[in-house]
Amino acid sequence: MTDCRLDVLCIGNAIVDVISDTTDAFLDQEGLTKGSMRLIDAEEAERLYSHMGPAREISGGSAANTAAGVAALGARAGFIGQVAPDQLGAFYKHDLTATGVEFTTEPQDFGQPTARSMVLVTPDGHRTMNTFLGAAQHLPSSVLDEEQIRSAGILYLEGYLWDPETPRYAMVRAIEVAREAGRKVAFTLSDSFCVDRHRDGFNELIDGGRVDILFANEDEIQAMAGVAHVETAVDAFKNKVETLVVTRSEKGALATQRGERADVPAAPVEKVVDTTGAGDLFAAGFLAGQAKGLSLEQSLKLGSIAAAEVISHYGARPEADLKALAGDIVA
Amino acid sequence: MTDCRLDVLCIGNAIVDVISDTTDAFLDQEGLTKGSMRLIDAEEAERLYSHMGPAREISGGSAANTAAGVAALGARAGFIGQVAPDQLGAFYKHDLTATGVEFTTEPQDFGQPTARSMVLVTPDGHRTMNTFLGAAQHLPSSVLDEEQIRSAGILYLEGYLWDPETPRYAMVRAIEVAREAGRKVAFTLSDSFCVDRHRDGFNELIDGGRVDILFANEDEIQAMAGVAHVETAVDAFKNKVETLVVTRSEKGALATQRGERADVPAAPVEKVVDTTGAGDLFAAGFLAGQAKGLSLEQSLKLGSIAAAEVISHYGARPEADLKALAGDIVA
Repeated sequence: MTDCRLDVLCIGNAIVDVISDTTDAFLDQEGLTKGSMRLIDAEEAERLYSHMGPAREISGGSAANTAAGVAALGARAGFIGQVAPDQLGAFYKHDLTATGVEFTTEPQDFGQPTARSMVLVTPDGHRTMNTFLGAAQHLPSSVLDEEQIRSAGILYLEGYLWDPETPRYAMVRAIEVAREAGRKVAFTLSDSFCVDRHRDGFNELIDGGRVDILFANEDEIQAMAGVAHVETAVDAFKNKVETLVVTRSEKGALATQRGERADVPAAPVEKVVDTTGAGDLFAAGFLAGQAKGLSLEQSLKLGSIAAAEVISHYGARPEADLKALAGDIVA
Repeated sequence: MTDCRLDVLCIGNAIVDVISDTTDAFLDQEGLTKGSMRLIDAEEAERLYSHMGPAREISGGSAANTAAGVAALGARAGFIGQVAPDQLGAFYKHDLTATGVEFTTEPQDFGQPTARSMVLVTPDGHRTMNTFLGAAQHLPSSVLDEEQIRSAGILYLEGYLWDPETPRYAMVRAIEVAREAGRKVAFTLSDSFCVDRHRDGFNELIDGGRVDILFANEDEIQAMAGVAHVETAVDAFKNKVETLVVTRSEKGALATQRGERADVPAAPVEKVVDTTGAGDLFAAGFLAGQAKGLSLEQSLKLGSIAAAEVISHYGARPEADLKALAGDIVA
């Protein structure tokens, strides 16, 4: 998209991940549902943290991870998200900027610290997220730089933004601005529990024709469609959006686009360490591919490669040279 | 040591590591000496950070890493170190406490944030550390719990504490208390540049008979002895302390103790990721071994196993189950 200054502009919750190894027994003991993301308040955050093992802190947040992946693949990415003026906020800004992402949202003091998510990783690599939204839940429409939105080929939004009320309004406004400028809008359903919380709102977005590219995993698209079969769910949504991307973990991924369909296997992974960010990086690869004018299948392959890299280590942002891993695809 | 409440009490700079992958070219460009630790002020910290890539934050600090390792091996460990009342300080306290280390030093506001070290890791796994001491350099003698010091079989101190003046006095006082109570004092030379800065002070400690167990790597013991040959350096110091431990990276380690000598090979490592903490964890294994009454050779083996684990991942604290890795040795 040569008339754009940015290829992909992402809006999401600006969250630092606090990642700790744990056991299935600990999840049971704390009454946590493995693989899910739940929102917690400051008190519960304090309580859970005091029970948790030692942790590493790594910048995260679903849409921000996607922005980092897009930049790592050599496309031009931006991010909008709210941090507080504290140490975590400073780390957050540094990490995203150092990745090459344009991130101009100023830290603001709403009386709450920068968001953090306690990510509990079981030996099978699955992650269970406990998110205290803090400053992120205050992202006001007023921080949107509408010129920036108009200058981006694709606006990408995470379903998680629907949880807190203020960012929801910001998201709806951003979509309006993007569509008025003739830009594409991409949206991820984020999490099947998130779908359960906001199915009506998500359907309204999609049925209203405000989503061009929809990302989901198997659970999420099934939860949206209210069916227990992936292909049936795909059939239900493939004509509602221009492009539908469904990730299927170790089974690979599929996409439909204006009647076309592509399926790819999962890229090989030596050892799954931490699945946090798999969907985010898949979206990054796919969007970078689309921005570069790649075919549907090649875009899916780029998504698979980026997802495979991120699950091979702790943290939800790429560590290896994604462009090198992608080889010929992005050459 | 059955008459003790703690096996090992460590005093050191309480530092959060900010770990980033880098290249040799970046070190050259920034004028950094690979493998060394240098102290930097707030301004230089800001400058270097703005040039660095994305990072992960993991609690560190040499003596604290040793305390974490001692606890991970099932021995009773404590730590004394100064953090500020900020987010990094809270992470720090959590991580150490969650490892099972007794850490009662209260956060204090000296107008400076919790210490952080920017650890730059090159593809060969070597780390170059740039440390902003912040709150750590204010550790006052007044925070010492003298009863706690008397209750620990071994008091362990890092040479790095000699850098800032206030903790140096605290360290000297702690040694006095430990020796009056008939406890052992262990000391690590920390870094060959640290030796260059404080050779006279370290010699005074050692010649004054205030160190029972001395830890060094090859560079450090050679720098202390002013010779370019390890065995000559060992000969120069083996009668000045009851126990001398010299780590030799991939060549293993040796120890002398009251005329006895033991040498062990390095424990196997699949892939060296980040050497930060190798010496700290070697000391942890050795001290845990001594506390459990193991032989000199078995204590060295425990050190090798703990060091091998910590260099196989990012961060300077154990992630795997050290007791399981040590197997029969600590059974």
